[in-house]
Amino acid sequence: MGGIVVPGESSRVSASIPVGAPGKHQGYLTVPHSRNDSAWGSIQIPITSIANGEGPTLLFTGGSHGDEYEGQIALLKAARWLQPEMIQGRVILLPSLNHPAVLSASRLSPIDGLNMNRAFPGRRSGTPTEMIAHYVYHQLLPLADVVVDLHSGGKTLEFVPSVIMHDLPDRELHAKTLAALQAFGAPAAAILTELDSEGMLDTAVESLGKIFISTELGGAGMTTATTVRIAEQGVRNLLTHFGVLRDDEVASSQPGLTLHTPEAGCFLVSHDAGILEMLVELGDRVVPGQPVCQIHHFQEHDREPAVYEATASGILWCRHVPGLIGRGDCMAVIACDYEL
Amino acid sequence: MGGIVVPGESSRVSASIPVGAPGKHQGYLTVPHSRNDSAWGSIQIPITSIANGEGPTLLFTGGSHGDEYEGQIALLKAARWLQPEMIQGRVILLPSLNHPAVLSASRLSPIDGLNMNRAFPGRRSGTPTEMIAHYVYHQLLPLADVVVDLHSGGKTLEFVPSVIMHDLPDRELHAKTLAALQAFGAPAAAILTELDSEGMLDTAVESLGKIFISTELGGAGMTTATTVRIAEQGVRNLLTHFGVLRDDEVASSQPGLTLHTPEAGCFLVSHDAGILEMLVELGDRVVPGQPVCQIHHFQEHDREPAVYEATASGILWCRHVPGLIGRGDCMAVIACDYEL
Amino acid sequence: MGGIVVPGESSRVSASIPVGAPGKHQGYLTVPHSRNDSAWGSIQIPITSIANGEGPTLLFTGGSHGDEYEGQIALLKAARWLQPEMIQGRVILLPSLNHPAVLSASRLSPIDGLNMNRAFPGRRSGTPTEMIAHYVYHQLLPLADVVVDLHSGGKTLEFVPSVIMHDLPDRELHAKTLAALQAFGAPAAAILTELDSEGMLDTAVESLGKIFISTELGGAGMTTATTVRIAEQGVRNLLTHFGVLRDDEVASSQPGLTLHTPEAGCFLVSHDAGILEMLVELGDRVVPGQPVCQIHHFQEHDREPAVYEATASGILWCRHVPGLIGRGDCMAVIACDYEL
Amino acid sequence: MGGIVVPGESSRVSASIPVGAPGKHQGYLTVPHSRNDSAWGSIQIPITSIANGEGPTLLFTGGSHGDEYEGQIALLKAARWLQPEMIQGRVILLPSLNHPAVLSASRLSPIDGLNMNRAFPGRRSGTPTEMIAHYVYHQLLPLADVVVDLHSGGKTLEFVPSVIMHDLPDRELHAKTLAALQAFGAPAAAILTELDSEGMLDTAVESLGKIFISTELGGAGMTTATTVRIAEQGVRNLLTHFGVLRDDEVASSQPGLTLHTPEAGCFLVSHDAGILEMLVELGDRVVPGQPVCQIHHFQEHDREPAVYEATASGILWCRHVPGLIGRGDCMAVIACDYEL
Amino acid sequence: MGGIVVPGESSRVSASIPVGAPGKHQGYLTVPHSRNDSAWGSIQIPITSIANGEGPTLLFTGGSHGDEYEGQIALLKAARWLQPEMIQGRVILLPSLNHPAVLSASRLSPIDGLNMNRAFPGRRSGTPTEMIAHYVYHQLLPLADVVVDLHSGGKTLEFVPSVIMHDLPDRELHAKTLAALQAFGAPAAAILTELDSEGMLDTAVESLGKIFISTELGGAGMTTATTVRIAEQGVRNLLTHFGVLRDDEVASSQPGLTLHTPEAGCFLVSHDAGILEMLVELGDRVVPGQPVCQIHHFQEHDREPAVYEATASGILWCRHVPGLIGRGDCMAVIACDYEL
Amino acid sequence: MGGIVVPGESSRVSASIPVGAPGKHQGYLTVPHSRNDSAWGSIQIPITSIANGEGPTLLFTGGSHGDEYEGQIALLKAARWLQPEMIQGRVILLPSLNHPAVLSASRLSPIDGLNMNRAFPGRRSGTPTEMIAHYVYHQLLPLADVVVDLHSGGKTLEFVPSVIMHDLPDRELHAKTLAALQAFGAPAAAILTELDSEGMLDTAVESLGKIFISTELGGAGMTTATTVRIAEQGVRNLLTHFGVLRDDEVASSQPGLTLHTPEAGCFLVSHDAGILEMLVELGDRVVPGQPVCQIHHFQEHDREPAVYEATASGILWCRHVPGLIGRGDCMAVIACDYEL
Repeated sequence: MGGIVVPGESSRVSASIPVGAPGKHQGYLTVPHSRNDSAWGSIQIPITSIANGEGPTLLFTGGSHGDEYEGQIALLKAARWLQPEMIQGRVILLPSLNHPAVLSASRLSPIDGLNMNRAFPGRRSGTPTEMIAHYVYHQLLPLADVVVDLHSGGKTLEFVPSVIMHDLPDRELHAKTLAALQAFGAPAAAILTELDSEGMLDTAVESLGKIFISTELGGAGMTTATTVRIAEQGVRNLLTHFGVLRDDEVASSQPGLTLHTPEAGCFLVSHDAGILEMLVELGDRVVPGQPVCQIHHFQEHDREPAVYEATASGILWCRHVPGLIGRGDCMAVIACDYEL
Repeated sequence: MGGIVVPGESSRVSASIPVGAPGKHQGYLTVPHSRNDSAWGSIQIPITSIANGEGPTLLFTGGSHGDEYEGQIALLKAARWLQPEMIQGRVILLPSLNHPAVLSASRLSPIDGLNMNRAFPGRRSGTPTEMIAHYVYHQLLPLADVVVDLHSGGKTLEFVPSVIMHDLPDRELHAKTLAALQAFGAPAAAILTELDSEGMLDTAVESLGKIFISTELGGAGMTTATTVRIAEQGVRNLLTHFGVLRDDEVASSQPGLTLHTPEAGCFLVSHDAGILEMLVELGDRVVPGQPVCQIHHFQEHDREPAVYEATASGILWCRHVPGLIGRGDCMAVIACDYEL
Repeated sequence: MGGIVVPGESSRVSASIPVGAPGKHQGYLTVPHSRNDSAWGSIQIPITSIANGEGPTLLFTGGSHGDEYEGQIALLKAARWLQPEMIQGRVILLPSLNHPAVLSASRLSPIDGLNMNRAFPGRRSGTPTEMIAHYVYHQLLPLADVVVDLHSGGKTLEFVPSVIMHDLPDRELHAKTLAALQAFGAPAAAILTELDSEGMLDTAVESLGKIFISTELGGAGMTTATTVRIAEQGVRNLLTHFGVLRDDEVASSQPGLTLHTPEAGCFLVSHDAGILEMLVELGDRVVPGQPVCQIHHFQEHDREPAVYEATASGILWCRHVPGLIGRGDCMAVIACDYEL
Repeated sequence: MGGIVVPGESSRVSASIPVGAPGKHQGYLTVPHSRNDSAWGSIQIPITSIANGEGPTLLFTGGSHGDEYEGQIALLKAARWLQPEMIQGRVILLPSLNHPAVLSASRLSPIDGLNMNRAFPGRRSGTPTEMIAHYVYHQLLPLADVVVDLHSGGKTLEFVPSVIMHDLPDRELHAKTLAALQAFGAPAAAILTELDSEGMLDTAVESLGKIFISTELGGAGMTTATTVRIAEQGVRNLLTHFGVLRDDEVASSQPGLTLHTPEAGCFLVSHDAGILEMLVELGDRVVPGQPVCQIHHFQEHDREPAVYEATASGILWCRHVPGLIGRGDCMAVIACDYEL
Repeated sequence: MGGIVVPGESSRVSASIPVGAPGKHQGYLTVPHSRNDSAWGSIQIPITSIANGEGPTLLFTGGSHGDEYEGQIALLKAARWLQPEMIQGRVILLPSLNHPAVLSASRLSPIDGLNMNRAFPGRRSGTPTEMIAHYVYHQLLPLADVVVDLHSGGKTLEFVPSVIMHDLPDRELHAKTLAALQAFGAPAAAILTELDSEGMLDTAVESLGKIFISTELGGAGMTTATTVRIAEQGVRNLLTHFGVLRDDEVASSQPGLTLHTPEAGCFLVSHDAGILEMLVELGDRVVPGQPVCQIHHFQEHDREPAVYEATASGILWCRHVPGLIGRGDCMAVIACDYEL
Repeated sequence: MGGIVVPGESSRVSASIPVGAPGKHQGYLTVPHSRNDSAWGSIQIPITSIANGEGPTLLFTGGSHGDEYEGQIALLKAARWLQPEMIQGRVILLPSLNHPAVLSASRLSPIDGLNMNRAFPGRRSGTPTEMIAHYVYHQLLPLADVVVDLHSGGKTLEFVPSVIMHDLPDRELHAKTLAALQAFGAPAAAILTELDSEGMLDTAVESLGKIFISTELGGAGMTTATTVRIAEQGVRNLLTHFGVLRDDEVASSQPGLTLHTPEAGCFLVSHDAGILEMLVELGDRVVPGQPVCQIHHFQEHDREPAVYEATASGILWCRHVPGLIGRGDCMAVIACDYEL
């Protein structure tokens, strides 16, 4: 971002409920969308707002990428069980932030091809993805103290289930965020330095001095009973951590692993196209020089596969999912141990 | 099939190598395919033939569905390491039987939309999938004593890794096949009764009185180091079991589980469309009445999810992978214990 | 058809309800359909069966073409209000016969591109449209005494709302069908001679010696309150006419118009491509030589439009809907008066 | 618009005729458009200019949305019959303003997906739709005193045929526009307050202090003899009203209805997806609480339809056309009586 | 073909003119084609018939593949200049036999994906391509003594302009065809042995004992003034040769080259994918071992290109056109000298 | 460009090699590209850098349009044979500048639909085409003294093989560029005045006061042995001309033709759609009034073709390739003699 945009601008997106008002309200954000098959059509994004008494405001988003489901399920469930009388403060839930992408089960919006998490702070009269980003930035972020954006690996990546924050220059904000990270209760916690953070919701929130927590829970375009449970418990743990929910069943525990990705060499990128064979399992420890995966040139079946070795020491934190891989695709990420 | 087709008819598909001849030969099956972007184009399917001395002929196929990879990888590797001097008999390897489907990473052929495993015995002047089936049926099956067709769950299903045979009316064939099934060395073995076996390679081979072994190894359109290892070891074990390979490192072990799917109720089919949440993990035991999964109506976010319960007692053997599910999709298969 | 197929063959389509059994049953026909996005997927077609006591069996179908809605709405409503105790006999309701076409709001099936009403008597192991036709022909027609197939103009045609029968060589069948035609209560009734009746449900039913009634109600891919009312009343009138329903509110009246299309000249076919301008309204009377429509060559804007004149005397019974028209499209049908 | 753009900038679009010069000129606007199938291709938009003596300049546009035909036909005809000697002043005719959209019979341009009527004032080096808007804004609007943009409902909406103006803050401009509105001679006249007028041609013209008249004539992607006649007569009436045409056959009459849409509740928006059944006819009067339409959940055929009631008192002025409707689509607009 | 089909069966295709009747008639073949965008649509294929007095009947077809233009242009021109009084006998002209393919500028029909020249003898109730083939086979071939099917290289092949016949077992037919071949007047004449002649118009005509002449004139999806002139002169020469036209300007000359392709090695097929570089020009002489072309692996830019050498001695008669080439594509055909 | 952008801004594109550093380096430019089928994917564009001692820097680009191959082949070959010890100075080679367009064999990028040669100076956070342009402008142009951009006609145009420069206002730069133009050694040399040079690489380089040379070599989406030889020799000749390569085999010769296109009338643009027939060959001389081509209305086969005549005197320098042509397409360019 070439300078911070001050949030608060009016939006072409409208809410059917009084977001943040006392009580429980369920409705839709309406994004105008004239189409060939509906001249006066619109996109309706489910939103739930629950408020009671005094306390901080937590904004939870899922479905920023349409093919990531743990967050969507956990927030759809929270939107049913959370009641005003259980809380002190405000909870705003957007289970399917990029609703068109969710409907098409794709990472990017099928309408404008945009990546929601590179579209912030958005544009008032832009494409649907940009209009949604603009609404969140200008109308919701001013209400929020804490933003939790629940991601997973989607159809093409798979992760050791992890809660994530960034290494923040503002040390006070860093400390508060770190406390929330530990409270989430995921098996692993990662402190990342984004190589290219332009346009992310993360960056937008952090530059406003607010707490931002993200996750990478599973992947392969699916969920398991285990990964959904991590997401649900994480939502409950954060609500409790910030004093919004009085929860006697706190299940939060320190993460078993704390990780980071300090070097570009942590990311293994393919220079071949073919069938990917992983040689280690997700979560396995690897050392430099150890073969991590190989690519079979299946059309030239007398050619030797291309072998890729680890250049860092750590665990296989993330892997490419599809059986076919192309040149330039990320095959694997090795995450290194990080002393908190 | 409305009557057995006698194999042996001439084919429009041609092989660039003398399939079954002594020695090791690697080349292509050529399927003529006139296209808008290549008037005199063709499809080239990799094939390897290795023969030496006396012994049975084993035909191995992978990539019958393009998005199933364990078989493809195991056979690409076998095509490199297997040498004539190691064997007595013949091995024919087709790692990517439906090559156009493999190239597009899809279950069905992108050219004709056909399912290779419902296209047997094929048609001489049919579409590419039908021409391939016709070639296999008329030119390769007459050479083979044993056919091994390596399947996995593909992009939309995931299985407890299993080796598979059918309950065969010919009890002698059944016994020989059962011995091979046990030799394969997979974690689970399943004896299935297909509901709808018309057009399958399985049916085509079995009706010729030959041994047929199949698998379902993993899924989600990916592989893991573990599932590839099961496929590689299974290929090696079968070669040894039939006396083709003299292998000192035999790793075969009895399957940990023997299963079948005796009732239609083993298959849970969705009557809802939405986000699928599995409530049990693959391989977990379930009892009748236990909730197995639920579907969230994410657009009507105030509606309760639809819960589906098990109607049989057994383990969760197979599940739907994608986060979104539609009406009529198979959500889960419960397999019951089977006494061999 | 090159000879009558005798119905009764087993089908790959299965019903979740006992079709034709006493009582009211609502469920689905399941058509197996393996897809890239659901390996073990199926198509679920809603079906309702209501039976009580003795009486004839009426089979009603809507959605044979996916973009025709009056029949779909009338049958969805009938499936709710009809109860066993109201009737003597059996009523089978298929509001969306070609369910995939209904889902895509298109005339033809998006899966196989086929026209349901040219697919009879179907194929057991054919494409989905052919499998549905096969099921109807082999499993439902044997149960039925009367078949009523509710059509409309769809997205590209619009009709004077009409009930339709064919001129039948079997004069007894003709008389019974004519009585039903008059009982339906539509504004117009047409007795057609199909130019090309191969593959139609009409032909399949009539050749079995059963009564067949069809309709063309409105069009433009939409409905109006009036055209839905005609369909609903027609269903009720036929049930009453055949003694299945005891209805005190019989609203049947003689059709205001009786029509036929005796000559090829009744069909005006375009030899131009451009913007269609109709010069008369649907239902207007025209005489030979009268301009009926003209086509504007909008890209060559200094060229005179091509004018098309009526060659028969009658009313404008049917017209092309879309503003653009291509060479070979039917622009209009002039129906002539017919003395019953 | 964030401030008025001053028209007059040079354009990449060029005209093959001297627009506005004395005499009658017919030719093309050429929009450069490099394509994969024509490296040095362009779009040619028909334009006619007729000028004679002194008098105001009227610019008429049709085909701003490609699936709206009354304006296109009326202007194609006017481009043939209008001759310089008939007029005093200038007439500029663009029957297919968004020519690519007209060629594909779609509301939006198939090239860039843009809505021509949200693209003003355009961009010099933008996409084709933006380049056309830029040319109109910078090269044609400076010539015009009055702009008439002829719209219809297109494929997805249908209207009571109406001539339209906006409630204008400049009361003198309002009065002049109102006089033109009444002169047009449509069955209904509507004075609208646009909710979202950014990017409209309307807004661009009105902010320049010029007279702007629009229409909504019919819809369903078709025309009728009646709606074309309204458009043709309206063009002739306006030419006469402004003194450009000396017409003895003036057929103008006061509109039978004068309407407006004062509240958001005039617009009924769907929260369901299914088959739409309108319960009242276009032009019918409705009162608050009266059911206007219902949506059938045709896949869940035992579920009750969702009924939508009027919240305002007035007439059904506009309705959704297609049989299927989605969440967020506008189902109906109730227009209220307006005292001129 | 598994046995000759006897032509004469009735067709669903109809002609708007009396084909073969005395005089000149220009009209259309109408192929019924119900589409989503025109329920009662059809395909209209231009046909011209000219007949006068006694003499043989010549049937000329162009556009069998939609991207081959010399034949289309020559026959469109012949349809204008040929008049009954110029001829003795009958001439039937079909410039765009596979009209849908011509409209989409593609080799195959965009409707059914079929290759017209592999669809004979067609099917009465098949797809459009099959219905056209069926009409030609059953309705036109019985009228014809000589069939001339004008082909070119299309978008993906380029040829030394040649007239073509097959080596025919019936020596009398062979001799008559050879005389016509020499009369055509092309720069080169080729006597081919088709590897795979099933479904070709050639085979259909020859098996009826009639004379069949084909061509391959240029290619690259374009024409030149020279190649069009060869086609036009060839049509005129054949009409003169068979005594239908009395032409004083006979320009026929013996072909400069007579060629054949006796071995499979004449066809160079690619086993690589990449950018094709031809090392010799079309018409150049090559000897065995001489490099003919090479394929650059442009994505692996440090890899040596794959070089392909001639295996036969002759001239480069045909080459692949597009810059990119895939595995299995024909790169080049070497034609050998043939002593007539 | 509304003012020169000063190059040097940081880029989101990264190089895997030290571009311009001494020695020979082959690697990739990596353009980040998140896709639905690879969340963390990227585009890898081959780049080679060779540097030694003192001397100027020449940047060569091919594949700016993906369907133009002479430059791609010549630069792929140069990247193999050029070694540091052969040169004095630096050579940077980008054989496939718009790599996604090269992969899809299309003029424009299949990802964003953009024309690389209208995308300069690019955008840092734009689409892939814009990011590539931005990298070239900001990171490579500062290194270069001379830029050579090798174009051909692509799939839809064909040229007399020519080397090209623009008429430059800076006479010193003009003179230096003219010397390079003559050194290239192409059959023809053209000095063009671009009508619309906004966004071209040409304009970007020239406004920085650097030497820019372009070409148009052949076309029809193919190459010939001859046109590839012209490209290869031209690269070698320019390296020698600028003293980078010490080449004893200098083959440069004065161009046979020197041309320009002084009037808009040099460009013949179609106002018809149909089949294009060229009446003269590429390179033929034409005079005003001479028919150059005609368009056949093949669907209205009784309509006369539209004939287009030359309006300038010169040679047919460029022609439309595809057999079908649309309204607004450039059919031909007549280039006039130019006295150097």
